[in-house]
Amino acid sequence: MLDRNEVIRSDTEFISSARRAPETRFVVYSGPRALLKPALPITPKDMDGQQLASLGLDPAEAVFLGLSGQTPWFAVDIASASDEIQTSCAADGRFETLAAIQDPIAGDAWSVLAQARALLAWNAAAKYCSCCGALTEMLSAGYQRSCTDTSCGALHFPRTDPAVIVRVTNGDRCLLARQPSFPPGLQSVLAGFAEPGETLEETVVREIKEEVGLRVGDPVYIASQAWPFPTSMMIAFSVEAAEETIRIDGREIEAADWYTREEIRQRMSDGSLVLPSVKSIARRLIDDWLDNL
Amino acid sequence: MLDRNEVIRSDTEFISSARRAPETRFVVYSGPRALLKPALPITPKDMDGQQLASLGLDPAEAVFLGLSGQTPWFAVDIASASDEIQTSCAADGRFETLAAIQDPIAGDAWSVLAQARALLAWNAAAKYCSCCGALTEMLSAGYQRSCTDTSCGALHFPRTDPAVIVRVTNGDRCLLARQPSFPPGLQSVLAGFAEPGETLEETVVREIKEEVGLRVGDPVYIASQAWPFPTSMMIAFSVEAAEETIRIDGREIEAADWYTREEIRQRMSDGSLVLPSVKSIARRLIDDWLDNL
Repeated sequence: MLDRNEVIRSDTEFISSARRAPETRFVVYSGPRALLKPALPITPKDMDGQQLASLGLDPAEAVFLGLSGQTPWFAVDIASASDEIQTSCAADGRFETLAAIQDPIAGDAWSVLAQARALLAWNAAAKYCSCCGALTEMLSAGYQRSCTDTSCGALHFPRTDPAVIVRVTNGDRCLLARQPSFPPGLQSVLAGFAEPGETLEETVVREIKEEVGLRVGDPVYIASQAWPFPTSMMIAFSVEAAEETIRIDGREIEAADWYTREEIRQRMSDGSLVLPSVKSIARRLIDDWLDNL
Repeated sequence: MLDRNEVIRSDTEFISSARRAPETRFVVYSGPRALLKPALPITPKDMDGQQLASLGLDPAEAVFLGLSGQTPWFAVDIASASDEIQTSCAADGRFETLAAIQDPIAGDAWSVLAQARALLAWNAAAKYCSCCGALTEMLSAGYQRSCTDTSCGALHFPRTDPAVIVRVTNGDRCLLARQPSFPPGLQSVLAGFAEPGETLEETVVREIKEEVGLRVGDPVYIASQAWPFPTSMMIAFSVEAAEETIRIDGREIEAADWYTREEIRQRMSDGSLVLPSVKSIARRLIDDWLDNL
């Protein structure tokens, strides 16, 4: 894991020279697509400063990820580079969205790829001041942006959007549901963003009520996961339903039902049920339940 | 508690007529200051549409909070109204920031005041598109804003900034710390914002390491609380320190030490220690520990 070192990232002299140092490593994105090594398990295909320079890529807007020992790590978005340069970058590697990854991915690789994507996406979407419309400029190596209109001067910080993801059980059955946008066969647990003024527990109760019409008991916290699509965080809970009758909203959820462990295993083996990818906390919630954890 | 009803708030006809309906209730803010009733326990001094109209206040930009039975509740920011109107509003009540409240406040009053503040603050700070600098316009009664430049068309959603707040213990002692900005005598538990790409557990470990130099065990989730200053959410954990020697950063934390329950009670009674206000989850973390909960 990288040392994010919030003192160092505010040191403009250090950051500026680290962006040009030959030993510095760069995680590379082209918009939402990360540059990955072809081998499994999945890891970023990082570059050093010389490789970047030889491709004519400028690290001036690279965001700081942290230190690995003494080695600075940054992330750079090359979406505006030519097709030719992007093709050169992808030699011996591939650009892929994190969403498309179905293979297992190690926690530290996920962490650095998620940090890079969330920071780059926020900086790209915060080029103008939301208070006054003037241009912003990057500070703290990507962890702040300030309004360039001195009469406004608003400071902006990266956003992280907390969402809950919830395993709803009823005795020995678990709720699985389909959103209209899911690929064929896919079913998952329920999820939704926290709204202004809510506790996470209130979000859990509200989302379940809205999406499947169920009253539930007290939510139990399980774990959390960075979910960089582009700047979310998934916060996982389990909860026991206080009633059985599902009433789907027909909008966010197009189908939902209760399944025993046996039914899930049977339908996975005959191909009529697909669970979320193994990288997701949604899958962990289901797998842990299947294993009685 | 209000039914936030995300279907109804996207119904522009309903919202537009509800903003003008005589039975509709309005929670009133002037910038960060909420209009409160003078009596305890603290509750918002809400107004109906006729009171708003008699003061010449326009509910066109009021944000939707939810339904209480059939009654719509909105929140309105009157910061741009004249001093005279603001004084009239405060008759038989008072404007006060939520931060200044030291008295106990019921969960449902906190919830509605937090929702109103977070939504109004976000709408006020998102008047321009952060992607292109054009004006935005309110959609979904305050839960979305869209860019008015059709070539951009970006959609923006309210932000909620997740932060962790952590009770660190070492055997029978609890860590209390001072930030330089605290009033005299105040000490509290540690807190900090989640950063892009982190899990909540990683935030806990990083913040403690940064602020007081301690390695810790596995964080245990306790609870969460809306913290509308202006759009945060506090997510509380407890954790056991793996070492005793505190090394403060001297920047975010100016003093920190271990205290037994007896020492905390003694210092509270002689006035040399002030704990955070009873409305805060910080105080609950400390009080629960004092009570061995």
